Amino acid sequence: MSEFRIEHDSMGEVRVPAGARWRAQTQRAVENFPISGRPLEPSHIAALGLIKAVAAEVNGELGVIDKDLAGAIAQAAADVAENEHDAHFPIDVFQTGSGTSSNMNANEVIATLAEERLGRPVHPNDHVNASQSSNDVFPTSIRVAAAIEVTFHLLPSLTHLAETLHAKEAEFAQVVKSGRTHLMDATPVTLGQEFGGYAAQVDHGVTRVRTALEHVLELPLGGTAVGTGINTPPGFARRAIAKLGEASGIPFREAADHFEAQGAQDSIVELSGQLKVVAVSLNKIANDLRWMGSGPRAGLGEINLPDLQPGSSIMPGKVNPVIPEATTMVAAQVIGNDAAITFAGASGSFELNVQLPVIARNILESIRLLANVSRLLADRCVAGITANVDRLREYAESSPSIVTPLNRYVGYEEAAKIAKQALAERKTIREVVFERGHVAAGTLTEEQLDDALDVLSMTRPPTEG
Amino acid sequence: MSEFRIEHDSMGEVRVPAGARWRAQTQRAVENFPISGRPLEPSHIAALGLIKAVAAEVNGELGVIDKDLAGAIAQAAADVAENEHDAHFPIDVFQTGSGTSSNMNANEVIATLAEERLGRPVHPNDHVNASQSSNDVFPTSIRVAAAIEVTFHLLPSLTHLAETLHAKEAEFAQVVKSGRTHLMDATPVTLGQEFGGYAAQVDHGVTRVRTALEHVLELPLGGTAVGTGINTPPGFARRAIAKLGEASGIPFREAADHFEAQGAQDSIVELSGQLKVVAVSLNKIANDLRWMGSGPRAGLGEINLPDLQPGSSIMPGKVNPVIPEATTMVAAQVIGNDAAITFAGASGSFELNVQLPVIARNILESIRLLANVSRLLADRCVAGITANVDRLREYAESSPSIVTPLNRYVGYEEAAKIAKQALAERKTIREVVFERGHVAAGTLTEEQLDDALDVLSMTRPPTEG
Amino acid sequence: MSEFRIEHDSMGEVRVPAGARWRAQTQRAVENFPISGRPLEPSHIAALGLIKAVAAEVNGELGVIDKDLAGAIAQAAADVAENEHDAHFPIDVFQTGSGTSSNMNANEVIATLAEERLGRPVHPNDHVNASQSSNDVFPTSIRVAAAIEVTFHLLPSLTHLAETLHAKEAEFAQVVKSGRTHLMDATPVTLGQEFGGYAAQVDHGVTRVRTALEHVLELPLGGTAVGTGINTPPGFARRAIAKLGEASGIPFREAADHFEAQGAQDSIVELSGQLKVVAVSLNKIANDLRWMGSGPRAGLGEINLPDLQPGSSIMPGKVNPVIPEATTMVAAQVIGNDAAITFAGASGSFELNVQLPVIARNILESIRLLANVSRLLADRCVAGITANVDRLREYAESSPSIVTPLNRYVGYEEAAKIAKQALAERKTIREVVFERGHVAAGTLTEEQLDDALDVLSMTRPPTEG
Amino acid sequence: MSEFRIEHDSMGEVRVPAGARWRAQTQRAVENFPISGRPLEPSHIAALGLIKAVAAEVNGELGVIDKDLAGAIAQAAADVAENEHDAHFPIDVFQTGSGTSSNMNANEVIATLAEERLGRPVHPNDHVNASQSSNDVFPTSIRVAAAIEVTFHLLPSLTHLAETLHAKEAEFAQVVKSGRTHLMDATPVTLGQEFGGYAAQVDHGVTRVRTALEHVLELPLGGTAVGTGINTPPGFARRAIAKLGEASGIPFREAADHFEAQGAQDSIVELSGQLKVVAVSLNKIANDLRWMGSGPRAGLGEINLPDLQPGSSIMPGKVNPVIPEATTMVAAQVIGNDAAITFAGASGSFELNVQLPVIARNILESIRLLANVSRLLADRCVAGITANVDRLREYAESSPSIVTPLNRYVGYEEAAKIAKQALAERKTIREVVFERGHVAAGTLTEEQLDDALDVLSMTRPPTEG
Repeated sequence: MSEFRIEHDSMGEVRVPAGARWRAQTQRAVENFPISGRPLEPSHIAALGLIKAVAAEVNGELGVIDKDLAGAIAQAAADVAENEHDAHFPIDVFQTGSGTSSNMNANEVIATLAEERLGRPVHPNDHVNASQSSNDVFPTSIRVAAAIEVTFHLLPSLTHLAETLHAKEAEFAQVVKSGRTHLMDATPVTLGQEFGGYAAQVDHGVTRVRTALEHVLELPLGGTAVGTGINTPPGFARRAIAKLGEASGIPFREAADHFEAQGAQDSIVELSGQLKVVAVSLNKIANDLRWMGSGPRAGLGEINLPDLQPGSSIMPGKVNPVIPEATTMVAAQVIGNDAAITFAGASGSFELNVQLPVIARNILESIRLLANVSRLLADRCVAGITANVDRLREYAESSPSIVTPLNRYVGYEEAAKIAKQALAERKTIREVVFERGHVAAGTLTEEQLDDALDVLSMTRPPTEG
Repeated sequence: MSEFRIEHDSMGEVRVPAGARWRAQTQRAVENFPISGRPLEPSHIAALGLIKAVAAEVNGELGVIDKDLAGAIAQAAADVAENEHDAHFPIDVFQTGSGTSSNMNANEVIATLAEERLGRPVHPNDHVNASQSSNDVFPTSIRVAAAIEVTFHLLPSLTHLAETLHAKEAEFAQVVKSGRTHLMDATPVTLGQEFGGYAAQVDHGVTRVRTALEHVLELPLGGTAVGTGINTPPGFARRAIAKLGEASGIPFREAADHFEAQGAQDSIVELSGQLKVVAVSLNKIANDLRWMGSGPRAGLGEINLPDLQPGSSIMPGKVNPVIPEATTMVAAQVIGNDAAITFAGASGSFELNVQLPVIARNILESIRLLANVSRLLADRCVAGITANVDRLREYAESSPSIVTPLNRYVGYEEAAKIAKQALAERKTIREVVFERGHVAAGTLTEEQLDDALDVLSMTRPPTEG
Repeated sequence: MSEFRIEHDSMGEVRVPAGARWRAQTQRAVENFPISGRPLEPSHIAALGLIKAVAAEVNGELGVIDKDLAGAIAQAAADVAENEHDAHFPIDVFQTGSGTSSNMNANEVIATLAEERLGRPVHPNDHVNASQSSNDVFPTSIRVAAAIEVTFHLLPSLTHLAETLHAKEAEFAQVVKSGRTHLMDATPVTLGQEFGGYAAQVDHGVTRVRTALEHVLELPLGGTAVGTGINTPPGFARRAIAKLGEASGIPFREAADHFEAQGAQDSIVELSGQLKVVAVSLNKIANDLRWMGSGPRAGLGEINLPDLQPGSSIMPGKVNPVIPEATTMVAAQVIGNDAAITFAGASGSFELNVQLPVIARNILESIRLLANVSRLLADRCVAGITANVDRLREYAESSPSIVTPLNRYVGYEEAAKIAKQALAERKTIREVVFERGHVAAGTLTEEQLDDALDVLSMTRPPTEG
Repeated sequence: MSEFRIEHDSMGEVRVPAGARWRAQTQRAVENFPISGRPLEPSHIAALGLIKAVAAEVNGELGVIDKDLAGAIAQAAADVAENEHDAHFPIDVFQTGSGTSSNMNANEVIATLAEERLGRPVHPNDHVNASQSSNDVFPTSIRVAAAIEVTFHLLPSLTHLAETLHAKEAEFAQVVKSGRTHLMDATPVTLGQEFGGYAAQVDHGVTRVRTALEHVLELPLGGTAVGTGINTPPGFARRAIAKLGEASGIPFREAADHFEAQGAQDSIVELSGQLKVVAVSLNKIANDLRWMGSGPRAGLGEINLPDLQPGSSIMPGKVNPVIPEATTMVAAQVIGNDAAITFAGASGSFELNVQLPVIARNILESIRLLANVSRLLADRCVAGITANVDRLREYAESSPSIVTPLNRYVGYEEAAKIAKQALAERKTIREVVFERGHVAAGTLTEEQLDDALDVLSMTRPPTEG
């Protein structure tokens, strides 16, 4: 009793593990590409299943294959789309640049499953892959997977993070603190204003990602081998893409130009670039949180982040800002993934970009990392932040830059002298203004001085009318 | 007779070259930063001038400074905006991260010019910089310069390139050639379809850049030191930004959140990311053109690029694809500039990103490079391309992949056998189909065979109805 | 019967899966970081085990813990170093930036295993982690894993690839072909010279990686919490590192400066940079191979790459250069990973870089990808390449650039005229030289002409003496 | 009187400005490439001059051209090498990818200068370029320029910075402060140890750059058009490179493999990668300095950086860390330049990489930026730093992590309780140890406790017997 069976393809015979639902071409690829040890992302396998299902339905409707066959393939493909057969997708992500191996893997597994269901032979190329080519299916699968993951995971996570930050904006609206520019003491702001700025960054990020999605929704499906649609029946692309839209709830469209859609992968490069902006935003936010929470004694000590776990294997009692750190590491990875995608995206030739699997891996990982870490940042860090209100006010009041409102009374240069003297002699700005005789001279009244030096009012933008 | 004069600022006295219109702070910065030898981009100096002009007007209207002073400053600033005084902007782009040195450079030069005009002292901080801070002016100047350069140079250049490519799409609509996937012979396409794909890439690029501009139009102006708008009179930002819009013809808006707009530079990171996608597109197009024009004898020899200059200092008669090469080098630079901007953009802290000058330099260079090279690519390369029609058809007809339409008659595996036999025995697909008895057996008629093997019809997508 | 047990740490109690050998801190981290779904690389877990084993031995020798305890820990750690317990290392690679969670994971699993062996309590911190901190152990583990993987996998693979390329250099030493510069026909080279160039690139790559290893061999171990070596007994670092050297066969050294070694991760940034050069080299080689193998009819068709698998799901008989494609995708990933490492490496603050796990992941993946793909490139592609000798010679002889040796007889400008005329009139260079009367005029003899136009001799560098 | 004269080349006639010393091919390139507005770097022009000078000398010695001609060309080229004619090198850096335009620019200018000197016609190709090709000269010029700039500017600057940092290491050897890991208070270090770590980073950087230089010293010169050395007399490369070594004082070598040296630019990619590591090191150092100098009241306030210029246009008296900021901006640019070089370096095909000018620009800029900013960082920042000794000690003593040495007496978990209690109740560690009865119970003596809590002794690594 053998552990292997013999399968064949257009190049000859291959030994395949007995229990495997894949066939000859998958097996060749398993053997050809022992490189990273990592298969396709599950969301990518699901997208391939989804595409194969709608293609089978349309092939049935248009008479390319018979209805029973179409039904059996569609059902088998739907199971693949539910990630029920991921174990039968063993091919390394570093493979042929078109993803043909993985497309054939899908064709073969679905053919086997349909055959089991139907009781008659199903051919991976002639039946499952009918009206399709790897060259339109595989780039379509990247966009479908990316659009689904962005729509149902990343955007909700980012929106949730923005809301959590806005809640803190409101909570800390009256908590005055020293602004910092160049890391040096500046004029006051409120802690709420800072969180409002972070929220605005994430809000903009939502817009950025949503905008990038527009081009991603243009699908190459229907272009087959080189974009011309050779071997597709009339109406195939239109019908298949409409079904994809219904099945996923996402308004996919047929590519305006199939040669652009297969020869280039610019829409994914664009999406990756926008994810990189989100990473840059999160990196800034996470670093600010880390610095504000630094201490407890030798740091800024402005805010407290929730304690999640012991921070050190040697220093007892130490607690570290682990979620912001994980966030900055995700930022590093997304920036790196974007560099990989950029290089790969620039490498297309003629009718096909042949760096598709590496593009797929990096974009889908970036989406997942950002989605997960945004939610954690919201729930396990931002939501639990508390402010050290007294320390923050003390910082605000001791900053030499609160001299700034006096510019209008004494001019920039005299104000600079006041600030420097206060710092050198460890006095308050108010004391030095009196000492230098500005109130006595009537340059400003004591009331004007007190108004000018009120730190909370310095944080309020001037309003018209 | 001295070559220097003495100027002072809040830190003391400085020797300034006698003929310089700048003053003490500019001079300090000249001496502090001998790093790259490169000053700000001219478009950046112009944007600073523009901002100073509208600020002076609004300061005059709101009574912050008197009308005469406002008028003199506004006129001086307008001259700076016309790039008439670029020689007086000597500070290195690698300077303080806020661009304060360059903002003060503008303040000082304009103060001097206004003083000459007005005949009474003008103070760089108290008068020219009134209601402003480097921290809102400098990031505003980056966005204003970028928006102007994108709107009036880059977008028209890209549009022109797209049009030129579309013209070739039409011209070559009937020129059939072999498609190439994985660089291997594939089913036929037309040369026009390829140029249409390139045009679509550039069309999408126009959309990408235009979309990114939306966030760039949000200006930090009015936020002053830390985003709170300290030391601005009510209405300043609204009025100044409206005037910027009128002066430039670009619909600038006040930043929805001033803390986002100064603490982060995400909108420029976003724009740079979209420029990077355009670079990736152009790189693909340029490489295809280089390969199609390769030869004349040992290459593909599909098209002819215009001869612009002798190609070799040693190989007589050689002509090279110099414009596509310059294009790929621009792509490399724009990708590099984006990496610099990403790193810089991720480095903000609290109320200010202090990598502003390096962000400015890179974004403005990327815009200029892409604008210039796109126009050259259109005018000195694409417009003059001619096709070697016979060679292209020969390639199309000899590609083994033209067997593909036979899948529907004989199935994928038999079709593979036909293709391999034709290749091995140096026969045509047609000959092998006869030899293997498919016509005799009635699998398909001779007419169906001829229809199936017509290379031009293989390039036509199937149509409905 | 419960599926969970209760564990505790310095922050309180935690529910841990009943069968898990990890304890409280690992469990907290599992719950805190559901981000990428990917654990540490196996080579990284092995390195942690190795370090824990030698540390236990030295702690035993120096009396920090008793001998029996030391022995039990060392044996348990050795099993971890053999990757026998990888399933008990479930923590996500995106976690606390110091890798403390994974260091504690190792401490906890080893404590549990030692406890099973010893029959008395073993404490993860006080016993397994004695004389150590995450802050020296974790960066040490990255370097140990990287050095081992480079030494035993990457360098042998690269050496094997270089040898395979050198073998082809010899095999193709007499196969003359047209050189190509700017993708245009240039003077002749041999195919062997091209493979020799590729081999030299890989040879240089071996030197690059080996050189970078020098800094990687400097270990932070012994620095503990902040580089000062607090809580280590005298001699700990020296002894432990000597044992690491013996166990691995790699000459590890104690870091010359422990503050550099923990505060920065420059040595890994350096190694990654050198891997990136190797990626760039392989990308060039792979692209040349793809182009030389392009066709069979509409491409260059200079060489044949081994057929590994059917190339297309729709175009029957098509075979693609899949291994070179996988190679260029690895290049893209290594370039991306380097960007991630660079960003992370630049993010250190004071006594610790807190992007260690993301650095670890990327460097170890890059090493593995390059090691695996280099071997595949050698064995499944380069070794089986054959040359189309006749076509190559035909290219060489038809290149207009073979006029170059005539410069010395007729000057560059007349030579350019000859080349252009030959091309325009579809004649050989030889014919045009006669036609233009150079032989008749005695500018050169017919014998000199024939010598000058011999394509193989054009490939031989001039020699002295 | 015309402002133009007519020049010709192998493609025909061209109008050249009357006063220009360049000729037809330069003029064509000026018109073909209006892209960046930036010419080659001066160091690059100098290197071209140097190469042309030694080539002329060897051509004279070997009889390729006559002695008088050789002498005149060599003298003219020497003037170019002194940057005396930079104004006559107007071609944009974005040009043909081989740098042929700039090589011809050098040939033409030198021909004109030699002609003026000699009084008889000198041909740019046949005489000045004799035995050379752009394809060996231009990549040689990049390496020569890079090696000279690294040797005479960058390495001395880095060495100077390292020495300045080491001087501070000594000066601050006894200044105890709180260590920081994860930005949280950790066990003590000395400020001197931190500067020692920075110095070690720069010391390693010197080694890195010096090591990378080894491959850069391998010159392509002698390979001419495609690496075969066609049209060079025997001995040319050996002699010319020896002269280059004498003239520059740098031990240049002939490339071991000329095909590697022209087809790839890996050695520059390698050098750029090492510069990137230096940038990463400097970024870390600069950020630490910025944070330690933050304040004066609302920051860490650990050290004082020299005041160089007023920091704000609106906030009087503010002084910012401008040199560290310029340093981090240089880091961003060098990282960006490396990305450009990587992309360009990966783009070679067959016998030539045609992204040479963009590679040249980026590597030479990176070298110059790092050389200049390192010296400024040393002289205008590090050298003048002073420490706030009292504040630093206060931080050290208040850090809860000073509980760490008690692990050996009370175990990690009890130590954690002590640290947390001290923090919560705002007591010292010493007080809490007494309170919890450890001294009373004899767990440790009061003397042991005081020894254990001595912050300066915590910074001293344990030493062996």
